[in-house]
Amino acid sequence: MPQGDRPIGIFDSGIGGLTVAQEVTRLLPDEQIIYFGDTARVPYGTKSKESVIRFSRDNVHVLLKYNVKVVVIACNTSTSWALNILRKEFKIPIIGVIEPGARRAIEVSKKKRIGVIATPSTIKSDKYAQTILKMAPGMKVVSRACPLFVPLVEEGWLDHQVTESVAREYLTPLKAEDIDTLILGCTHYPLLKTVLQKVMGKGVMLVDSGTETARSVRKLLEDHALLRSSTRPPRHEFLVSDEPEHFRVVAKRFLGHDLPHVRRVDHV
Amino acid sequence: MPQGDRPIGIFDSGIGGLTVAQEVTRLLPDEQIIYFGDTARVPYGTKSKESVIRFSRDNVHVLLKYNVKVVVIACNTSTSWALNILRKEFKIPIIGVIEPGARRAIEVSKKKRIGVIATPSTIKSDKYAQTILKMAPGMKVVSRACPLFVPLVEEGWLDHQVTESVAREYLTPLKAEDIDTLILGCTHYPLLKTVLQKVMGKGVMLVDSGTETARSVRKLLEDHALLRSSTRPPRHEFLVSDEPEHFRVVAKRFLGHDLPHVRRVDHV
Repeated sequence: MPQGDRPIGIFDSGIGGLTVAQEVTRLLPDEQIIYFGDTARVPYGTKSKESVIRFSRDNVHVLLKYNVKVVVIACNTSTSWALNILRKEFKIPIIGVIEPGARRAIEVSKKKRIGVIATPSTIKSDKYAQTILKMAPGMKVVSRACPLFVPLVEEGWLDHQVTESVAREYLTPLKAEDIDTLILGCTHYPLLKTVLQKVMGKGVMLVDSGTETARSVRKLLEDHALLRSSTRPPRHEFLVSDEPEHFRVVAKRFLGHDLPHVRRVDHV
Repeated sequence: MPQGDRPIGIFDSGIGGLTVAQEVTRLLPDEQIIYFGDTARVPYGTKSKESVIRFSRDNVHVLLKYNVKVVVIACNTSTSWALNILRKEFKIPIIGVIEPGARRAIEVSKKKRIGVIATPSTIKSDKYAQTILKMAPGMKVVSRACPLFVPLVEEGWLDHQVTESVAREYLTPLKAEDIDTLILGCTHYPLLKTVLQKVMGKGVMLVDSGTETARSVRKLLEDHALLRSSTRPPRHEFLVSDEPEHFRVVAKRFLGHDLPHVRRVDHV
């Protein structure tokens, strides 16, 4: 099999990374995807650096068993703490979601004032601010942890009055900072776009790293001559560490359609 | 060392079980406690039967290393799925939180109409309804999963307008069933008592299994002649599978005071 005909590996703490997987399949429809969601240990966003690194390393090992050609970390918390460490530990190319999102935000912000919302663990890592300021030292970055957004998305209250109240509480300090760009620094948050846009107002651009990350994946595959050449339609696979049932239900909400192939696999 | 001078082992998916541990120390102030919170894999309430059983078994093994004399499962989801299985697998006496809570609810309900609120996984197990109907076949039991309550407690929004709105949404169907007793079927929920009582009204008695479970523990220790005889003040220990930092912060909210001894341990 040509090297490029191996699948793209994507992992996330659970289900949120499907928003990234969707963008990858949209931009690279001929590529085959192996997705792993660590649903037995989800969420990562409230857990420590040490645990997130350990879990992320385990997830790369799971994907390597499927002979993937590249690993995409479709989880902001995992990217925050583990990307640099995993890049040193593994030979396979690894792409995270933070650099692409940061780059895009820098491009679109006219006022040079960027907001970042994410899980407590991602915010604690300060990785978005560091990445933005390294690329564009003149930027002002304001960050806010939003721990209730993930449970609200998982509950399916995407357009609920309660979600809007929570968003107002979390986002008011960001609005006061006069930002014109808001990075959705968690792969669950694109599902809240309608409410977030309403609360932030039309003048604020929402940046979702999924699309940008998919572009980075394409560029990497092109640069390494790893694009898939097979003309057979790709057969994506979805693996989870907990039983697949709950994943299937919430995945349908994320993707708008059923996932045919979901099965449980063990770490180790 | 006399058999009774060994510690009481208590485990939970994370922090909620501290409400049970507190009741145990209140009722049995001379006893020493080893508490284990599986904070690396928390929550259990959104996970499958299979994972919850596996995690619970791991937790018993952790406690056994500390030579405990009894294991208290201070987690409703874990009790729902794993109690009967663990009782068969281990020789040590094991106590869960569901039987005590069910017994108390049956005692206090005059209308014989009991509500149960808990995590999705606990509600799915149907264990409360089964236990109540086995003890008192004439009861009417109405159940409701409340997935956002745990994140709201962890966020510290105990008395927040959003929490009240969420409670109204979850509890309205239970109010319509004219229950006079509501079992708080998750060890996080006692922290929401004020809001829950407000939403349910004064006519509804809230049953928190912590106190009842502590009584069961005392009875078991008495029956097995396992009460502690040492006159040295007990030194409680708190173990967690993620780093202790976040646990310490939220534990203070649960207990109203700092926890001096918290450290990370690995499973296996």
